[in-house]
Amino acid sequence: MAEARGRGFKELIRVEPALQRFFEALGETSRPVEQVPIMNALGRVLASDVKSKVDIPPFDRAAMDGYAVVAEDTFGSSSTNPLMFDIAGRVDIGGKAKVRGGRGRAVSIVTGAPIPPDTDAVIMLEYTRKPKELTVEILKAVTPGDNVSRKGEDVQKDSVILRRGTVLKPQDIGMLAGIGSTTVDVVLPPLVGVLSTGDELTQLGDALEQGKIYDVNRPVSLSLIREMGCIPMDLGICRDDPKAVATALREGLSKADVLLVSAGTSVGERDIVPSIVNSLGSPGVLVHGVAIRPAVPTGLAVIDGKPIVLLPGFPVAAMVAFDAFVKPLLNRLLGSEATPIPKVKARMLRRVPSHGGLRAYARVKVRRDGDNYVAEPLRVSGAGVISSMVKADGLLIIPEDKEGVEEGEVVEVILLRPVK
Amino acid sequence: MAEARGRGFKELIRVEPALQRFFEALGETSRPVEQVPIMNALGRVLASDVKSKVDIPPFDRAAMDGYAVVAEDTFGSSSTNPLMFDIAGRVDIGGKAKVRGGRGRAVSIVTGAPIPPDTDAVIMLEYTRKPKELTVEILKAVTPGDNVSRKGEDVQKDSVILRRGTVLKPQDIGMLAGIGSTTVDVVLPPLVGVLSTGDELTQLGDALEQGKIYDVNRPVSLSLIREMGCIPMDLGICRDDPKAVATALREGLSKADVLLVSAGTSVGERDIVPSIVNSLGSPGVLVHGVAIRPAVPTGLAVIDGKPIVLLPGFPVAAMVAFDAFVKPLLNRLLGSEATPIPKVKARMLRRVPSHGGLRAYARVKVRRDGDNYVAEPLRVSGAGVISSMVKADGLLIIPEDKEGVEEGEVVEVILLRPVK
Repeated sequence: MAEARGRGFKELIRVEPALQRFFEALGETSRPVEQVPIMNALGRVLASDVKSKVDIPPFDRAAMDGYAVVAEDTFGSSSTNPLMFDIAGRVDIGGKAKVRGGRGRAVSIVTGAPIPPDTDAVIMLEYTRKPKELTVEILKAVTPGDNVSRKGEDVQKDSVILRRGTVLKPQDIGMLAGIGSTTVDVVLPPLVGVLSTGDELTQLGDALEQGKIYDVNRPVSLSLIREMGCIPMDLGICRDDPKAVATALREGLSKADVLLVSAGTSVGERDIVPSIVNSLGSPGVLVHGVAIRPAVPTGLAVIDGKPIVLLPGFPVAAMVAFDAFVKPLLNRLLGSEATPIPKVKARMLRRVPSHGGLRAYARVKVRRDGDNYVAEPLRVSGAGVISSMVKADGLLIIPEDKEGVEEGEVVEVILLRPVK
Repeated sequence: MAEARGRGFKELIRVEPALQRFFEALGETSRPVEQVPIMNALGRVLASDVKSKVDIPPFDRAAMDGYAVVAEDTFGSSSTNPLMFDIAGRVDIGGKAKVRGGRGRAVSIVTGAPIPPDTDAVIMLEYTRKPKELTVEILKAVTPGDNVSRKGEDVQKDSVILRRGTVLKPQDIGMLAGIGSTTVDVVLPPLVGVLSTGDELTQLGDALEQGKIYDVNRPVSLSLIREMGCIPMDLGICRDDPKAVATALREGLSKADVLLVSAGTSVGERDIVPSIVNSLGSPGVLVHGVAIRPAVPTGLAVIDGKPIVLLPGFPVAAMVAFDAFVKPLLNRLLGSEATPIPKVKARMLRRVPSHGGLRAYARVKVRRDGDNYVAEPLRVSGAGVISSMVKADGLLIIPEDKEGVEEGEVVEVILLRPVK
């Protein structure tokens, strides 16, 4: 395969222009919309702006426990000059204000209860005294609106509260509930088919024969797809036979919205996938050989409007290609922005070489060093070394315009695991 | 409720000692273990260390396309002094090596194919020439082991590949597949019951009567629980009636492993939840009133071995209390570390006041400013303002030993949303 070095490719295209070429061929994409109960909408992508059908609060309400009054009546009151009010009654939470205020009258009120008619402010309980049953002394002046949450102050009716493309978080589900929405329109996520090719691959659960290995790329890709909120579709393992691969890809295209196929994607004699993809329709393979390490033998294709990503066979390279190409593709189809990922600044304990012109992904161990972080590249880190994926707790991406990272340099590292 | 200020509480306990008291009363916790297919294990927590039952690679294999040879035979070869070898045959990927090497013999081989007997190195294809059908010229010397992946080089049989407590990521699922595991032992996540109390609360889907509002805390908590990989259990809304609350809590305790109850948790006349919790068993409420803003009226209780968290009624305060207390509790029950969260350094555009001795949570808007980030506190940000939860794209936590954050100060902000 020789894929870690990019030998055999006449020309390597950088990640950004590769994605641009891919997305241009794909054209405008729009996914169907589906209506789901809000309690099933966590992590889904909003298909359209959500406007509030109600005001929040839906009525003027007390923001403090105390007494609702006409503010003007309290002017001049202080602890040395308390003013006396008649207690006209009490408003409870969750009901109508059945009592009225008015000049010289105070209405006992609790936080969240509706402000009674003929009052315009709430005086907090601690600035009052109650000398007898139906009388209250006010020890501080308030101005109109004090300690009152106005109707619509939090959310105004007909205002947009959540934008299309938002990946719904718990607080968004709360907001939808707050405005009384029982359902919400979200994007129907794409169905992403995943096919692994290779005569050496054995189906999980089957005994391992001499010369065979278990397939790693499919379980990883299917899990990454699920993690992104898309629908994974397992297309199984296909042996390195042109007819079988063509049939599997054709079947995958008929069922899925996006196709990922791993291995056989380089330029060797056994790398049959690119030409088979080209035989399936047009425009075919648009990008083949990318300036990214370790994922050079990545291909990007479009067949009759459906995107296909050709992933390298080496597991680490396949994961890197997923990160660099499949993630942006799926976000584009979902109509959402990439969610923020945890990163820290870390001081490198060893040099990491890389070639200028290639974007490089290095797996690192991260640990705390006092208030700071230090990172060390994993010693064994070939694209075929599966254990490096699980031993790494961080990922260092070295951009194209840099030739390696020096020992002692402070770099930004993506955190994959909790750091000890 | 007066909860945002902590009035009424005699003493406020800081977050860390509060958690310590809570966890001590809870004692050692251990969750049942469940065996699941690896493709259902994404995001689950490993219940025990996983050892590999196999070597990876399971056999010595070629790391490059080329010819397997006895390294010693190549010594002295160069492009000006090529050495001739007989081609003894070919080994394909996925099968047994049916051909043997030996002195003066070269075996054609592809990456991933088993190294044939009586060879100890692979010479890369580009350092060879093929003058005729069954002869190859070697243009470079190799040493034993060159371009060979040794059996067990990546993963050694019986070595621990994943540690107990690991939250399984896509790469871990790939690793489990790689070693041939079809199932994995994971922690059975706790069932977390969520009850909202309040006469003003209306069930989603019902019409909103005068003076009522829709419940926000329950949908938020249920979503946060799900996001953490635990099992949410909706216990509904309960009105502010001591008997009804006691019944609902007792029922919740009988069904769930953890109970969250929101509102009625402060020290006012209508704050009936703490004393009801105390009446249910022992030791009862261990912490009531916490030095955290806006979530002072939080309570932590243990009843007959089961943890109960009393969440403030204001939605923002309830979310803050979830972050500070429920998350560490659920991670403890799951036996996992908190997963890393995305943070950035941002320069504050305005001052954020806070009281020394209290941990403060401020909601901020974050945006890019060239290569850096700037953050601005939301102007309307009371604990009751639901919209501030969804408008915020960042969270600023001001520790207890700081009194506010100054304008221009660079602080660490937790990212809740993609930043524009």
